[in-house]
Amino acid sequence: MFAPKTNPGNFFEDFRLGQVIRHATPRTVTAGFNVLYTALYGARFAVQSSDPFAKAIGYRRAPIDDLLVFHVVFGKTVPDVSLNAVANLGYAGCRFLAPVYPGDTLSAASEIIGLKENANRKTGIVYVRSTGFNQDGARVIEYVRWVMVRKRDEAAPAPGDHVPRLLVALEPGMLGDACPPIDTAAYDFALAGSPHRWEDYAVGERIDHLDGMTVEEAEHQLATRLYQNTARVHFNQFTEGQGRFGRRLIYGGHVISLARALSFNGLANAFHIAGINGGRHVAPLFAGNTVFAWSEVAYDPAVILDLDYWVLLPR
Amino acid sequence: MFAPKTNPGNFFEDFRLGQVIRHATPRTVTAGFNVLYTALYGARFAVQSSDPFAKAIGYRRAPIDDLLVFHVVFGKTVPDVSLNAVANLGYAGCRFLAPVYPGDTLSAASEIIGLKENANRKTGIVYVRSTGFNQDGARVIEYVRWVMVRKRDEAAPAPGDHVPRLLVALEPGMLGDACPPIDTAAYDFALAGSPHRWEDYAVGERIDHLDGMTVEEAEHQLATRLYQNTARVHFNQFTEGQGRFGRRLIYGGHVISLARALSFNGLANAFHIAGINGGRHVAPLFAGNTVFAWSEVAYDPAVILDLDYWVLLPR
Amino acid sequence: MFAPKTNPGNFFEDFRLGQVIRHATPRTVTAGFNVLYTALYGARFAVQSSDPFAKAIGYRRAPIDDLLVFHVVFGKTVPDVSLNAVANLGYAGCRFLAPVYPGDTLSAASEIIGLKENANRKTGIVYVRSTGFNQDGARVIEYVRWVMVRKRDEAAPAPGDHVPRLLVALEPGMLGDACPPIDTAAYDFALAGSPHRWEDYAVGERIDHLDGMTVEEAEHQLATRLYQNTARVHFNQFTEGQGRFGRRLIYGGHVISLARALSFNGLANAFHIAGINGGRHVAPLFAGNTVFAWSEVAYDPAVILDLDYWVLLPR
Repeated sequence: MFAPKTNPGNFFEDFRLGQVIRHATPRTVTAGFNVLYTALYGARFAVQSSDPFAKAIGYRRAPIDDLLVFHVVFGKTVPDVSLNAVANLGYAGCRFLAPVYPGDTLSAASEIIGLKENANRKTGIVYVRSTGFNQDGARVIEYVRWVMVRKRDEAAPAPGDHVPRLLVALEPGMLGDACPPIDTAAYDFALAGSPHRWEDYAVGERIDHLDGMTVEEAEHQLATRLYQNTARVHFNQFTEGQGRFGRRLIYGGHVISLARALSFNGLANAFHIAGINGGRHVAPLFAGNTVFAWSEVAYDPAVILDLDYWVLLPR
Repeated sequence: MFAPKTNPGNFFEDFRLGQVIRHATPRTVTAGFNVLYTALYGARFAVQSSDPFAKAIGYRRAPIDDLLVFHVVFGKTVPDVSLNAVANLGYAGCRFLAPVYPGDTLSAASEIIGLKENANRKTGIVYVRSTGFNQDGARVIEYVRWVMVRKRDEAAPAPGDHVPRLLVALEPGMLGDACPPIDTAAYDFALAGSPHRWEDYAVGERIDHLDGMTVEEAEHQLATRLYQNTARVHFNQFTEGQGRFGRRLIYGGHVISLARALSFNGLANAFHIAGINGGRHVAPLFAGNTVFAWSEVAYDPAVILDLDYWVLLPR
Repeated sequence: MFAPKTNPGNFFEDFRLGQVIRHATPRTVTAGFNVLYTALYGARFAVQSSDPFAKAIGYRRAPIDDLLVFHVVFGKTVPDVSLNAVANLGYAGCRFLAPVYPGDTLSAASEIIGLKENANRKTGIVYVRSTGFNQDGARVIEYVRWVMVRKRDEAAPAPGDHVPRLLVALEPGMLGDACPPIDTAAYDFALAGSPHRWEDYAVGERIDHLDGMTVEEAEHQLATRLYQNTARVHFNQFTEGQGRFGRRLIYGGHVISLARALSFNGLANAFHIAGINGGRHVAPLFAGNTVFAWSEVAYDPAVILDLDYWVLLPR
């Protein structure tokens, strides 16, 4: 009788290779985002905490946290890309292309770069390259993710069959310009919280970041709503209580931000995430669990996040 | 020995017909309110999310959410009007009269427009018209609510007996000017998240907004304190644990904002609440409960909120 | 093989009398801090709530809450002073020296003013004078605290033995200039929420602030992370579950801010904390507990905070 007005999300057979989706809800990220982000994770990197510190080394002011930019852009993609997802399988090639400052407005678009139906014909894997833009149309972030999405109708023909070649790792020349040229002489290592510079770290070094953080339902829900991420599994105990885990699932990005904040203790001068080579959520996280972090995480059974990323440190 | 310094709140016999109360605690609503409000409810309306989107269609910038204006003004009325309330019975004739932008300062006053003692002489119904003002003294919101308030002393004479005639519904000509003239041609329906315009909706249409949101104690407490609402039933488990429900009661306005945010899925272009004809909290909500929303809510036993309101959509 | 990069915190034998520590992570306190602070505690003092109210009486705009300044500065001292603390024993001589406004950047330093090993040789008491600065290097807050800190090595020689003479109470002449000269004639007592002025209060008067506030884990964690306070006992249920109390311990400053917010009901015009003579956390607080406040707290077994402070009220 009436045309349906709600968005059921796209199913696997709704996607087309090369399709470009402009996502809804541009978002002005004011200084208050930074405040709430600190309250959610407790990060202490001086560049994102202090306008004078950031200005001294070359930023216009304290920038919006790199991962907060990621979460806001990711959130916009959810209603179009992963509302009917079974699992978020991985990330690759995440580059931070331009600084984002309080007052900037983020919007997002995604291109479908791969589609592969699963053998059971019930689901398929969707590969998307998502890009975040600022109010001037400049690209601020770009990343690939792949996600397993349900089909609406098992019998529907598969929309193509193409698995893109993904970068195993970014090369240094591919890293973006989210960090302006830094005046290292103006970088105050005491205020930053550690004397350890780029040359103090060595390939193969493992850092146990020591501290643990127990997550509450209210915390991850506040965060995930802040990112305007609408994935239902994070918010609805009534439905999830009857589901796979019997619990609300915590947004994987919440874990990434917790791990990043914990990493301060050992990587205090790694003030900018220059790129994320790849990431996988290896196990689900639930409220009441306590998150710990290592700077090189091994594939052991208790691992919930495996993130391979570039950070920028002053020499 | 010492004059009491604490505010016990007004009891039924303390009110007088025609009395005007100037409420305490003017509040500057900065952009950070908007951020925390998003984290609490997850609303995605583009006008309130993005400065450029709001400017393009005619706002000075992204305005403060209509319901956030309501909550801040409502909060100010609590210490004077409903600290000794047994129940908040209803709202009527809520009009949004002028836009509220980050940086504006809200204050509030209420006029007692009706008083009716109950037959048991223990309580009475107080009808108030509350008005919110900005820093220039301009009215930004006006609404009527009625509330059952305890008497301090059963034997006290009732302070008059007058039941005001309340509007069943606002007429279009009564709606306020909180929304400036809109340049519909500049309204980007893709960024707004839905192609459905005013003419796509029909009288009698029912929309199930699909998603559910489970509420945590920390969330409704943060919200209700943000609004500087001091009603004790929301915060004190020690006392409420011994009371009627054995639990903290969630501020009714928290439910309204959750329902509004959920309504985005189906009403994404209904970017402004032009007026609230009436509303009743039909059942209490407690932490752990999951809120769902329909755009036309029926009087069925699981209903916790029945809100009849006008929204503004582009044609 | 690799130099350790993580900060284990200082142990008792690491401190030296007269040592000055510059703490890490300068923090720009934007208007959003004020918003989240209100959501966490619900304070209603008009000066901190409203720019026009604050301006009318002589402030540049609504200042950052005094205790929020305290918490941010305190948070910076934790990684250097109390990461290996057994107990935070007390505060003295806390003075608020200059107003802090949104946009100011706070940093902190501490001087070791006393050291006293305990007889068991396992711990010692460290006395520090901590000072907060703004971006111009002006002192905004100063206080002494003493804390019992573990030794790394029982056999290590004690680093001196000096117990400083602490002020029992500040004298009026010692109070700082965080409050500008006030135009009392412009102070609107109705908007402030109470008619009671300085001369209405009497020595010996006790005020029961009536209201109670139940604390949730998510709330104190959000607050303590906002302050970038890294004390492990507040965040890690995995470890604390096996510890002394079996629970996460709530940051003592959270209790101070709750008590201050509750004190509005009886002390609405006490808009500025002019100084804190001394304070002790007499018992731990845990999530689920409900906090009540009196303006003069007696040493009775249910007391969790005993704070002796100066407030400023208009005559």
